[in-house]
Amino acid sequence: MIEINTSRAKQFLSEDRFSQAYKQAEKAFELVQQRNGEGTEWLGWRDLLADPNDAILEQIDSLATNIREQADVFIVCGIGGSYLGARAVIEALGSFFGNDGPEIIFAGHHMSGKYLKDLIGYLDKPNKEGEPKSVFVNVISKSGTTLETALSFRVLRKWMTEQFPEDVDDRIICTTSKEGGALNELIDQHGYKKFIIPDDVGGRFSVLTPVGLFPIAVAGIDIRTLFYEAVSKYEELEEDAEQIIDYAATKYALFDDGKTLDVLTTFEPQLEALGGWLQQLLGESEGKQGKGMFPATATYSTDLHSIGQFIQQGTRNMMETFITVKSEEKSITIEELPENNDGLNYLSGKTFHEINTQAFRGTLQAHTDGDVPSIVVSLDKLNAQHIGEFIYFYELLTAVYCYCLGVNPFNQPGVEDYKREMYQLLGKH
Amino acid sequence: MIEINTSRAKQFLSEDRFSQAYKQAEKAFELVQQRNGEGTEWLGWRDLLADPNDAILEQIDSLATNIREQADVFIVCGIGGSYLGARAVIEALGSFFGNDGPEIIFAGHHMSGKYLKDLIGYLDKPNKEGEPKSVFVNVISKSGTTLETALSFRVLRKWMTEQFPEDVDDRIICTTSKEGGALNELIDQHGYKKFIIPDDVGGRFSVLTPVGLFPIAVAGIDIRTLFYEAVSKYEELEEDAEQIIDYAATKYALFDDGKTLDVLTTFEPQLEALGGWLQQLLGESEGKQGKGMFPATATYSTDLHSIGQFIQQGTRNMMETFITVKSEEKSITIEELPENNDGLNYLSGKTFHEINTQAFRGTLQAHTDGDVPSIVVSLDKLNAQHIGEFIYFYELLTAVYCYCLGVNPFNQPGVEDYKREMYQLLGKH
Repeated sequence: MIEINTSRAKQFLSEDRFSQAYKQAEKAFELVQQRNGEGTEWLGWRDLLADPNDAILEQIDSLATNIREQADVFIVCGIGGSYLGARAVIEALGSFFGNDGPEIIFAGHHMSGKYLKDLIGYLDKPNKEGEPKSVFVNVISKSGTTLETALSFRVLRKWMTEQFPEDVDDRIICTTSKEGGALNELIDQHGYKKFIIPDDVGGRFSVLTPVGLFPIAVAGIDIRTLFYEAVSKYEELEEDAEQIIDYAATKYALFDDGKTLDVLTTFEPQLEALGGWLQQLLGESEGKQGKGMFPATATYSTDLHSIGQFIQQGTRNMMETFITVKSEEKSITIEELPENNDGLNYLSGKTFHEINTQAFRGTLQAHTDGDVPSIVVSLDKLNAQHIGEFIYFYELLTAVYCYCLGVNPFNQPGVEDYKREMYQLLGKH
Repeated sequence: MIEINTSRAKQFLSEDRFSQAYKQAEKAFELVQQRNGEGTEWLGWRDLLADPNDAILEQIDSLATNIREQADVFIVCGIGGSYLGARAVIEALGSFFGNDGPEIIFAGHHMSGKYLKDLIGYLDKPNKEGEPKSVFVNVISKSGTTLETALSFRVLRKWMTEQFPEDVDDRIICTTSKEGGALNELIDQHGYKKFIIPDDVGGRFSVLTPVGLFPIAVAGIDIRTLFYEAVSKYEELEEDAEQIIDYAATKYALFDDGKTLDVLTTFEPQLEALGGWLQQLLGESEGKQGKGMFPATATYSTDLHSIGQFIQQGTRNMMETFITVKSEEKSITIEELPENNDGLNYLSGKTFHEINTQAFRGTLQAHTDGDVPSIVVSLDKLNAQHIGEFIYFYELLTAVYCYCLGVNPFNQPGVEDYKREMYQLLGKH
């Protein structure tokens, strides 16, 4: 269960401002439900939960199981929405220092030649058993021509072809549009396995499609639990949208009141990548027509020692969103130290998680006292179930909040601007 | 050589506003040089360059060489300024997939019990040769009682003591204040090796002290080049501070003009951690008295696919700082593909770095057209020399810019607020 607490934001809002925002949020939710808003042709992320297709999950699971048995390394080649969701879930539910099953490596998400060269050097080294590494590549791109991904895939495919002359075609899996696009040509030629990205789902809303689900399954995470908990959150929120409407209204009212920065933060370092997913989801959806709160990300208590000062006392134009987790399965209890040189024996018997929780509470109080409004989102624990709920919750929240702002949540017209300039410099005709 | 280009920021500033800011920046620079500003007791980071102590470098180098020969894993246990500088330099100059010499792991920078548990699980596993891992720990804390670091060090020290009963005391190195503090007690008891953090250098200005230099040396980076290039940048800027004054004036004038967000970005993913170092340096220095530009970090082109839309068209209250690198030693050339399915053959013969550079130029143009002022910082290449210069350049810039803002660059009074609340919740007496 996700709990949302907006009280430490509302205390900074006048009743009038909030109640007006609330009315707007109610209308915004109707726009989503009744498909009357801008960009309504992009609501596929809702449809796939309204009418779940278990056959696709089965297909994903079966190929993933197969790969988990064979692969040392599984490379996810994609950028933006084509990797942020998978990375978020895999890091949230995995180990910090290597998981069972294949090592998951991301590529195709920038144009660092050094990164690719280092990666190939690493792939060239033998695995733990001293054998050549068994590598699989999942390339993810609707068009197949996304520059970073396509160029990296050229390099990786060449290496794969040289390395695995016998079965390279079984080792490349394409996640792409149903028809058309550069990857479908290759699929026809080589017989690569293929997953389809629905036409009506945009990149940042695609984690519950094969874009996200396939890498997540290869990481050994139960995608059925993830997916069907999103389904039940979908059903819950269709019946009672109060939680979403209240959140969207609060965030919109804060924007209306002059807040232009939302620091998305957590006290759980394994949720850092989830912050990155949320950053894209919110930022790319709301940041248009000169509007929106810039979504910055932070991990506490780490970053309290870097940007904490600013948040406490710098320019007062920010709000904070805390993603917290109530319990931790793996924790460590502080032991009594005879010498007590650090004076911390008063904490003995407490777990790190308990201390971390007090750090969160202390921070919340201090930042509230420092006039930073905040919204607190709590998950009971970190598992596929709660992350599934979380994903759909924020997809819906984003749509509703953007309609409050009066922007189309589903397009990204500004992203074309740098591409146009770049392609011109690169001499593309 | 670092080049600074402020022209794409100045085009957004009136002559009047800039010339007033310039006068303020000249005075601010004098405050630093003549030690007349607030917090002037914290100028030790300048003194150590004015009067280099080669004996310390020798001592660091010699112990680091020793450890490089023996260690599989070297753990840096510290938070904030006690690890961000070392991480920045090590990532900037290392490989993405493992370096020669010991693996460097950071700990003590948050309170995740899961992280520590996963780390210990990893340390418990044998090394590549099937032997128990040889581990060294460098704990870094002036007081020795920084909560995250001290608690993690308790756990690590216990593990080390059990794992290396014979020589644990040779495997723990403390970087701490000259006298007093919790670590000095342990040093006296156990004979741990010790490096001193000068009293007059704050955490975020400490990368060129043993705090940063020792881990950097263990990573195999030439600390003499790093340090002495900072020394020569110091000397250069004492003689001619025009570069710094112009930069500080430009940034201050943008703040004065209503900019409250500075997106620190780079097209080189290995500079991501350098962005983290800069984020602390700027944010913790300027974010006080309700002033300052919030320093967000981004890595392009990766993040153009997440926050690019917002930067192009969202709320117009931001500036951008681009850290760019002119040449890349390791790169890859795009090869012609017979099938040209992705239509990218027009790029064949170009390196990734050349394409990345055009992505940077295209982005700069597009964001300028989108009314985002920007400052461009260029390094010739990524090596110890240029990073050394870069570090001192930004330390000085931060001090001068903060005096323009009228804030003490060297304190962080707001950081105490959450600690006070937290300690109360934890029942500290």
